[in-house]
Amino acid sequence: MQAAVYEGPFTITVKERPKPIIKDDGDAILKVQLAGLCGSDLHAYRGHQKTTTGHIMGHEFLGVIETVGPAVHKFKVGQKVMSIFSPMCMKCWFCKHGYTNRCQNGPSFGSMALDGGQAEYVRIPFADSTLETIPDNVDDDLMMLMCDIFPTGYYGTMKALTKLMQNTETAENILNFKPLQSAPQLSYTRQQLKDVTIVCLGCGPVGICGVLTAIALGAGTVYAVDSVPDRLEQARNMGAIPLTLGDDDILSIIKTATDGRGADAVVENVGNRAAMRLAFDLVRPCGVISSIGFHQSDLPFDAFEAYSKNIDLNMGRAAVRPVFGEALRILIEHQDKLSSFISHKMPLTEAAKAYDMFEKHQARKVLFTL
Amino acid sequence: MQAAVYEGPFTITVKERPKPIIKDDGDAILKVQLAGLCGSDLHAYRGHQKTTTGHIMGHEFLGVIETVGPAVHKFKVGQKVMSIFSPMCMKCWFCKHGYTNRCQNGPSFGSMALDGGQAEYVRIPFADSTLETIPDNVDDDLMMLMCDIFPTGYYGTMKALTKLMQNTETAENILNFKPLQSAPQLSYTRQQLKDVTIVCLGCGPVGICGVLTAIALGAGTVYAVDSVPDRLEQARNMGAIPLTLGDDDILSIIKTATDGRGADAVVENVGNRAAMRLAFDLVRPCGVISSIGFHQSDLPFDAFEAYSKNIDLNMGRAAVRPVFGEALRILIEHQDKLSSFISHKMPLTEAAKAYDMFEKHQARKVLFTL
Repeated sequence: MQAAVYEGPFTITVKERPKPIIKDDGDAILKVQLAGLCGSDLHAYRGHQKTTTGHIMGHEFLGVIETVGPAVHKFKVGQKVMSIFSPMCMKCWFCKHGYTNRCQNGPSFGSMALDGGQAEYVRIPFADSTLETIPDNVDDDLMMLMCDIFPTGYYGTMKALTKLMQNTETAENILNFKPLQSAPQLSYTRQQLKDVTIVCLGCGPVGICGVLTAIALGAGTVYAVDSVPDRLEQARNMGAIPLTLGDDDILSIIKTATDGRGADAVVENVGNRAAMRLAFDLVRPCGVISSIGFHQSDLPFDAFEAYSKNIDLNMGRAAVRPVFGEALRILIEHQDKLSSFISHKMPLTEAAKAYDMFEKHQARKVLFTL
Repeated sequence: MQAAVYEGPFTITVKERPKPIIKDDGDAILKVQLAGLCGSDLHAYRGHQKTTTGHIMGHEFLGVIETVGPAVHKFKVGQKVMSIFSPMCMKCWFCKHGYTNRCQNGPSFGSMALDGGQAEYVRIPFADSTLETIPDNVDDDLMMLMCDIFPTGYYGTMKALTKLMQNTETAENILNFKPLQSAPQLSYTRQQLKDVTIVCLGCGPVGICGVLTAIALGAGTVYAVDSVPDRLEQARNMGAIPLTLGDDDILSIIKTATDGRGADAVVENVGNRAAMRLAFDLVRPCGVISSIGFHQSDLPFDAFEAYSKNIDLNMGRAAVRPVFGEALRILIEHQDKLSSFISHKMPLTEAAKAYDMFEKHQARKVLFTL
């Protein structure tokens, strides 16, 4: 079969590879119809992430099931399905407790541990929990966003808003001395969300899905920060207030808009030191920073600063499985705002060109057709 | 009147000072009956916290109201009351939203901005929101814990457990694809808490109140870490598993007890670099660190580590007002476990001696009688 193989930094070659076969009872083999090129593919492509060479790239794909192992019960041969970006066993302690982002048995697609889906066929471990059906009312191209970027963007923003609501108590509850009869409960209301100011740092594919999530969940004021005009235009069309990194005095704008306090929550989608520091400076005391960006450096604030600001910080990659349903609901409801999301569809044979374009920000989102 | 005055590091002098008078309409003047010596008084006493000299120390006290300003409506002259450690206006944005720990108008008792209560009389700004009545079924000595250490210890542990429950989703909810009709809700059940392993780092006055909170809220397994045998004995009597810093291999014990995962939550009550690093090492992926200790250094973990562990971190001082009722309920219900908490009662005239003993860990908790 044909596959896009990683042969070193800036070198993707489409070449012949053996068709995958069932290895474990829970495996399925998928005949790929669409495969996505994702921002995180660029970590290896650019050489930032050290890895061996020779594996097939890609962790976003959908297609038709060609074979299933004997332990696959939810899916049948011939069924059209999509895959979540990382297989999960749903049997380890972490999966059982909803932390599928820390599954102890699931290797990552498109890595040295597991070939990816930028190929004619791909092997899916733990098929029953890694695959998802495709609802009738969703277009295939749109459904491709559900493999990674939409639930990841959803997760970062949802975490910020959920944590924020958890930190909020109304003055009414507080002033009435009223010993509680049970443990504290989260009060999370649409009304409270209307008063929220949230800043989304970074409007790449994941960040823009986070912007849409903030709008869809009902956050009152959503700022979107990036340096790329096209991305900011997308954010504006979704209902966010765009701020241009490098041009706008972002800190001063947010402070002025919040009577000097700062934003209630900041979602950090970028994954570098400068973005994290900006997040810290923008958030108000007792506010929330939700960081979904992949970080490789130190934390750009110290313990005294974090103590003095009563900071609430959540970091790390998304648990897709627990949020899949809610994220999909929002995707379907707001699909009109994502109609121009996929900028390029190209045959897999043009993978090398596609990586080059995507790396140079010349494509918003690329899908490979097979 | 007589008052314990800060005259520089390691120098507390009891001397004559003018009796305070009403300055603002919301003030009350309290005739002090009991005043506490708190661990945070030691920050200035030891010279770690830079401050001017000449102010009256102390932020824990109860007594009888002698005068009230015209805007005080909830309390009357002659009423017996206690004070929360820091006045709060309940009118600024932060107070109105429950973040009384970041009140924009309330100076701290026992600081250069506001004389404290280790004196015969003390002025209470924002008396209606800063004072609390004393329930009939609570002893005065015990109620002194409600000025600061008990709600602070409660807050640190409650934050850890509440955040933990917020992060938890059952596998059942996850595996059933079910688009939600509303925003995510916190599921917080006694049953889930039974499975929780929580580590309380530091069993000084605040830490031990946090240990009791963890037991009272129903956390299944509570570890208490300190180096002082007397503190660990207290923790053991409350139902915690004591671990001796320096003797026990704490990391190995916690890892073994959790099948290699680490603790679900760690409460950091100490406020130094080593304790924060231990907290990070002890917590499992997707776990919670709640840090109530006062930090002055950098954070002893980097962004890559925090990303890779999906860390959930909450820092900063307690918001007492929102948790006062629930904390008091627990204090009353579990008061038998705190019967030996107050180790020394001394007249205020012996303040210099008391500070010296307390600083040397020769007293668990000191109250001054007036």
